[in-house]
Amino acid sequence: MTSISHSDIITSTVKKLSDPESFKNLSHQHREGEPMPSSEELNDFINLARAILFPGFFGNSTINSRTLNYHIGVKVERMYELLVEQILAGMCYECAAKDVTHFNEYQEKAMDKAASFIEKLPELRRILGTDVLAAYNGDPAAQSTGEVIFCYPAIRAITNYRLAHELLLLDVPLIPRMITEMAHSETGIDIHPGATIGEFFTIDHGTGVVIGATAIIGKNVKLYQGVTLGAKSFPLDEEGNPIKGIPRHPIIEDDVVIYSNATILGRITVGQGATIGGNIWVTEDVAPGARIIQSKAKK
Amino acid sequence: MTSISHSDIITSTVKKLSDPESFKNLSHQHREGEPMPSSEELNDFINLARAILFPGFFGNSTINSRTLNYHIGVKVERMYELLVEQILAGMCYECAAKDVTHFNEYQEKAMDKAASFIEKLPELRRILGTDVLAAYNGDPAAQSTGEVIFCYPAIRAITNYRLAHELLLLDVPLIPRMITEMAHSETGIDIHPGATIGEFFTIDHGTGVVIGATAIIGKNVKLYQGVTLGAKSFPLDEEGNPIKGIPRHPIIEDDVVIYSNATILGRITVGQGATIGGNIWVTEDVAPGARIIQSKAKK
Amino acid sequence: MTSISHSDIITSTVKKLSDPESFKNLSHQHREGEPMPSSEELNDFINLARAILFPGFFGNSTINSRTLNYHIGVKVERMYELLVEQILAGMCYECAAKDVTHFNEYQEKAMDKAASFIEKLPELRRILGTDVLAAYNGDPAAQSTGEVIFCYPAIRAITNYRLAHELLLLDVPLIPRMITEMAHSETGIDIHPGATIGEFFTIDHGTGVVIGATAIIGKNVKLYQGVTLGAKSFPLDEEGNPIKGIPRHPIIEDDVVIYSNATILGRITVGQGATIGGNIWVTEDVAPGARIIQSKAKK
Amino acid sequence: MTSISHSDIITSTVKKLSDPESFKNLSHQHREGEPMPSSEELNDFINLARAILFPGFFGNSTINSRTLNYHIGVKVERMYELLVEQILAGMCYECAAKDVTHFNEYQEKAMDKAASFIEKLPELRRILGTDVLAAYNGDPAAQSTGEVIFCYPAIRAITNYRLAHELLLLDVPLIPRMITEMAHSETGIDIHPGATIGEFFTIDHGTGVVIGATAIIGKNVKLYQGVTLGAKSFPLDEEGNPIKGIPRHPIIEDDVVIYSNATILGRITVGQGATIGGNIWVTEDVAPGARIIQSKAKK
Amino acid sequence: MTSISHSDIITSTVKKLSDPESFKNLSHQHREGEPMPSSEELNDFINLARAILFPGFFGNSTINSRTLNYHIGVKVERMYELLVEQILAGMCYECAAKDVTHFNEYQEKAMDKAASFIEKLPELRRILGTDVLAAYNGDPAAQSTGEVIFCYPAIRAITNYRLAHELLLLDVPLIPRMITEMAHSETGIDIHPGATIGEFFTIDHGTGVVIGATAIIGKNVKLYQGVTLGAKSFPLDEEGNPIKGIPRHPIIEDDVVIYSNATILGRITVGQGATIGGNIWVTEDVAPGARIIQSKAKK
Amino acid sequence: MTSISHSDIITSTVKKLSDPESFKNLSHQHREGEPMPSSEELNDFINLARAILFPGFFGNSTINSRTLNYHIGVKVERMYELLVEQILAGMCYECAAKDVTHFNEYQEKAMDKAASFIEKLPELRRILGTDVLAAYNGDPAAQSTGEVIFCYPAIRAITNYRLAHELLLLDVPLIPRMITEMAHSETGIDIHPGATIGEFFTIDHGTGVVIGATAIIGKNVKLYQGVTLGAKSFPLDEEGNPIKGIPRHPIIEDDVVIYSNATILGRITVGQGATIGGNIWVTEDVAPGARIIQSKAKK
Repeated sequence: MTSISHSDIITSTVKKLSDPESFKNLSHQHREGEPMPSSEELNDFINLARAILFPGFFGNSTINSRTLNYHIGVKVERMYELLVEQILAGMCYECAAKDVTHFNEYQEKAMDKAASFIEKLPELRRILGTDVLAAYNGDPAAQSTGEVIFCYPAIRAITNYRLAHELLLLDVPLIPRMITEMAHSETGIDIHPGATIGEFFTIDHGTGVVIGATAIIGKNVKLYQGVTLGAKSFPLDEEGNPIKGIPRHPIIEDDVVIYSNATILGRITVGQGATIGGNIWVTEDVAPGARIIQSKAKK
Repeated sequence: MTSISHSDIITSTVKKLSDPESFKNLSHQHREGEPMPSSEELNDFINLARAILFPGFFGNSTINSRTLNYHIGVKVERMYELLVEQILAGMCYECAAKDVTHFNEYQEKAMDKAASFIEKLPELRRILGTDVLAAYNGDPAAQSTGEVIFCYPAIRAITNYRLAHELLLLDVPLIPRMITEMAHSETGIDIHPGATIGEFFTIDHGTGVVIGATAIIGKNVKLYQGVTLGAKSFPLDEEGNPIKGIPRHPIIEDDVVIYSNATILGRITVGQGATIGGNIWVTEDVAPGARIIQSKAKK
Repeated sequence: MTSISHSDIITSTVKKLSDPESFKNLSHQHREGEPMPSSEELNDFINLARAILFPGFFGNSTINSRTLNYHIGVKVERMYELLVEQILAGMCYECAAKDVTHFNEYQEKAMDKAASFIEKLPELRRILGTDVLAAYNGDPAAQSTGEVIFCYPAIRAITNYRLAHELLLLDVPLIPRMITEMAHSETGIDIHPGATIGEFFTIDHGTGVVIGATAIIGKNVKLYQGVTLGAKSFPLDEEGNPIKGIPRHPIIEDDVVIYSNATILGRITVGQGATIGGNIWVTEDVAPGARIIQSKAKK
Repeated sequence: MTSISHSDIITSTVKKLSDPESFKNLSHQHREGEPMPSSEELNDFINLARAILFPGFFGNSTINSRTLNYHIGVKVERMYELLVEQILAGMCYECAAKDVTHFNEYQEKAMDKAASFIEKLPELRRILGTDVLAAYNGDPAAQSTGEVIFCYPAIRAITNYRLAHELLLLDVPLIPRMITEMAHSETGIDIHPGATIGEFFTIDHGTGVVIGATAIIGKNVKLYQGVTLGAKSFPLDEEGNPIKGIPRHPIIEDDVVIYSNATILGRITVGQGATIGGNIWVTEDVAPGARIIQSKAKK
Repeated sequence: MTSISHSDIITSTVKKLSDPESFKNLSHQHREGEPMPSSEELNDFINLARAILFPGFFGNSTINSRTLNYHIGVKVERMYELLVEQILAGMCYECAAKDVTHFNEYQEKAMDKAASFIEKLPELRRILGTDVLAAYNGDPAAQSTGEVIFCYPAIRAITNYRLAHELLLLDVPLIPRMITEMAHSETGIDIHPGATIGEFFTIDHGTGVVIGATAIIGKNVKLYQGVTLGAKSFPLDEEGNPIKGIPRHPIIEDDVVIYSNATILGRITVGQGATIGGNIWVTEDVAPGARIIQSKAKK
Repeated sequence: MTSISHSDIITSTVKKLSDPESFKNLSHQHREGEPMPSSEELNDFINLARAILFPGFFGNSTINSRTLNYHIGVKVERMYELLVEQILAGMCYECAAKDVTHFNEYQEKAMDKAASFIEKLPELRRILGTDVLAAYNGDPAAQSTGEVIFCYPAIRAITNYRLAHELLLLDVPLIPRMITEMAHSETGIDIHPGATIGEFFTIDHGTGVVIGATAIIGKNVKLYQGVTLGAKSFPLDEEGNPIKGIPRHPIIEDDVVIYSNATILGRITVGQGATIGGNIWVTEDVAPGARIIQSKAKK
């Protein structure tokens, strides 16, 4: 090929790729000046949240009793501004086709949602404190709660989930999923923001854990790496596609432990205090206190 | 220890580490001015590809019908330049020992390969469109195809795979594997660029999925997290090492679903429309339409 | 809500979040000017180590026989300085409550530990060379040892582990775990720095692998993705929490292969040359040379 | 001093600095979400302008006849968006005290002004072309017009001035001055955006040149470093402050040359073709074609 | 030349450049871990100072009455930490040869000096407020005090000078000069930190202004661009070098105006209310209220 | 205006700006893959040079006698690579129109020139050492030679000039001017790389100094701010443009001092040991040892 023909290929390929027919359903039309929600901004949001919730561990500021409130004040205000912008971007993503004249109304809603979220931060700190304690108590290798907060991927994934879940409860679109996917990429732990999870929750190691959108998890539950709380099969609509919004993931009651790579599928209930051994496939209810393991290996 | 002795340790360690004998087979001699392929550059390549294939979702540009072709034009041209440079770096990595006088010839080949890749972009957009549709239709939690494109790790992994596979078909060395490993790190999904995968392919959650170099996957196949399509054992050569290049991974026919953590090993065939339950170990052919699950757990 | 009430919410939330009672056990008080160990700095440490151990593959310098020792000299010196600072930060994290007057003593210890670590680099290069060879020989898809060094996530995870393990042997707190968690996030491979692992070690694909703190692994062992070498149950202390520091993970003898998603739990021994099939749950000793696989799937 | 007293000093100083009385007239109250115009953004604006006006010299894109219009398209669109945002910020700076309900009206005006500016770019390129030619022809040290465009500070300063002047004509507040001050800092040439300057204008070396807000300069004028076209004295208002807005700087007619460090003050006229020698102080009209120099030095 | 000979040149040049004899008096030996003062850090210091002194104009935070004190608190604390580090670096630069055992003593002094500087910030804001007012009142082109604060190079240069002068009064070495040189580079205004300058000081345009180390300037003085307040000649010591520390720059009394490019040299006094015309060379006392200008130009 | 019409304006303006006729002589056509010389790269070159020439003052490395040669080795090698690339870019800028087949020949020449430059570094260090000494001895405000090296703008400007002058002697196009313009922008001192300047050269304060391309300056010369060594008038060619390449700037003999804002024009000679007072305009020879000053000011 010659340099001319390379140039021809570029020109003709650009023409094909610019044909609207070729990107139908694969592109997004922006309203004037309204960007998509931004991964970079949401990453800043997570870093702000970690620095606010666990003072002195994250963020590069030093803390002492006299200046702590300055730092928290600046970070909470920054979080509010960032959230207003990102929530608005999420709402505009969904409303792209709708009447532009409602923009001011959306902006007010975004400000309300952001303020409501800020108001939840003290309770989020309290419940994450129970998760930290559960991780520390449950792991003989943990040296201190500080090491758990600072190093354990599970705390990062659960923090992202609890933040995202609050945003989902406030009807914020798109962003909750982005936040849990950020933790998924970082830790290999995939918790859908729609799941409901009680306090003192912990995950050991965690890579490969999947918790579905309608799962309900009680207090004091512990999961190991590779555990799936998934859906078994989906009722199909008339066109053969899964019907959305139906409860389809397990209910895990209080004090349950599930070992590595176990797969729990469907709207079944794992009763209080049950223990599920590793590498098994569970699609029926498990009685409270039961202990089930894989059938013996073949030699 | 004293500060002097620290300095001695540094000096003597540097001497040991600079001994060529100590890094035989662990170092790489560069030709004048020829760097290794660059992860940063290839990351830019992926970002360009996403922005070109799914206009308006990636890249920080806004799009409208009048200016879209400017943006695609600039990005395609930039991709061409970047690819020429990286393909050349990949070729030079392999040819390090060879005669330097062939450099101009390599450069022309790199330009040809880059142009040929560019030419494939419209078809890559079409087939990735089928993957997006499959993910959307198969997941009751998906709100829109936009959410799938923007948030789902499987789409990122499959996009990287399809780009890398095209480069592999063009005999580009090293870079295809780097591109799929970037997705592996980001998503936990490890698809070898040598695998052959049909349209409407989807992976749910995805962490821990492994698809081997000689696997062949038909149309409309769905995998869940933790699925392995691997090799069972390797024929050894006379020195006891595995013989390279032999077909050794499964053939998965159209319309197959494989649930989480299933392990399918060896050059077996899973027949059209079969369903493989989770957490099982499959090393023999599975008949079309068959449905196999793990033997019952022990209580 | 009005703009005023948003401002009220921010102000009152900041007040709640600044209440010391609310972050008891969730915050870290710094001594004057002593930051936490830094992920960014440790990331630089890993990059320096890769560039020193595998010259020409990492770092953006070109190498030739005349200038190589300049580059290694600068990098080793930089590593020494970085390590002194980070080791000190790790020690200060632990000693926060103690008498400040011992600061100079800590600084000297940090310098000693850093120098001792530097001294181990040539041996670390040697043993990592055996791991590279094991990965290359064991994978028919590998084109060259260079590709293994440059692209394979297992080499990244094992490198981080071997560096972290040396630091742990030098009684450096916190940092070893941070370094292995960095590899965990990047590769999905979670090796505790406390584990003991022999030469010619390799992991294929790797996502989901977990190797516990007291595991002992012999020479020439190969693991596939999703393998767990974990603890079965923990002896509890009087308050019902696991007792820390007891050997609780498996011993894997020389020449063992463990296939994907197998879970090996407790202080059991897998004898020399044994093969463990995928997706199984092993909680009892396995005899040398044994070969165990999952019981047959149900159709 | 003790560490406690340092902390006291910080706390009490923060209190004093937060007293609104202390920053009256020295602070700026922002409307919700309306930042000040941004130097970083305006720097991007200048870089875009240089890349659009002098294709191939600035911006890191390569140009060829097929792809040039993609690049110019992307850059012009980006410039439009950037200008809308910055012009709005400039308008909001001035309107801070006014009724917020006019915000949408301001936004529309900002869009109009940005579009009107874009429309002037072709004419700006034409006139800057004459300035480049004048610099090249007038400097025996210039090797090519390309060297003039790429290296000469005068071209940078004149480009910034001509861009800023157009914005001033569009009644854009604050930003024109920011743009000329950026050139002032970079080149030491201080041209007020309000000045009126004809084509084929050039400045040699340039450091220390000052051209006042109401100066009028004809065609084909050349200034050397350190030349001031300033005001002599200001009519004062009743409070003893200078009255703003009165013509008070010189008129320089076509074909004038002014040598280094000459100071021309007040609303005088330097007639066509005059030459002003260096280091002199001129406060009266100079006849067309005149040639004036400093009185002889004393030995 | 061949590639080999290039390599030889590099190697032999490195050897020459590493010969200690070759860099005697041109190099700086660091104590372990003590860097030079950092331009980047001092640039941050200036930005913090601007944001603290003129709230809402600099720094990217928005301000309102409820959150202002958070922002000022965080910035003042950060400034304290930064100053301790930089002052220590400055002191260590000077003390390099001295006994290392005094390090802790130096650190305490650095903390004292930093706290004393912080304490001066409210007074610095007050006096800079008078300079802003003088610039606004004296320039018919100024639209608002805000424009003066945000855009005028003189305010930047005077701010740097006033900060540096306070540090000089605290006997901080090296750093004051670095801070005024930063303004010199940015604005072309070179004020030595040792000069003494009264309130309501202003400089118009400013490029080329030089104010020497022992100059004394009263209240309400205005300088134009290119004005030098310099030394005429230096008494020499026995070796023929200038004697350091002798008053050698002018005293400018209250209410003086000095026009562009005037040069005032030596320990002379320019009396209250005098006016000095542009481009003149003054080496003798000027009486109060006098008005001197250049002798007439020659035609 | 409506949003549609803004879009129309953008589209039609892009069309006008893409018309080749509109950017004739104002654009630069690149050969495939050959960028313009890069300001960022040349800035790195300057930083490398400062760190090599004045070890311990610049660059963030600490130095001690054992590791210094590692640092200088790495920096010299990096400088060589950077120079090859930039010299080639400079040569390609000039050769754009010529036969592409000579590319390899250009590359070899670029490598030769870079190596020749490297070879000059020890002599450059020696002569810059004399300049540092001259600045220190000549300024009563200087505390140490270290302060002069680290803070004085004149040393930065003279360093850039001496580096650029060597490159000019090696017939490197474009880059020498870029390097001196970088110093011009930073310091306000504009020394043409073509000037010839002896050892022990110093400039005090420096803003506004201009030294023309054919100026010749002896040993031990001192200039103050605002001094111009310029051309008086240019012989014109037949088209009325200045003839390039004729000696047209002053010769300044050894031991001359020239005070602030003096303007020396034309190919005149200022004899050994002469003193030129400030603010004067000199266009005729000055005898050795003479002392000239401005005629007396008018009151």
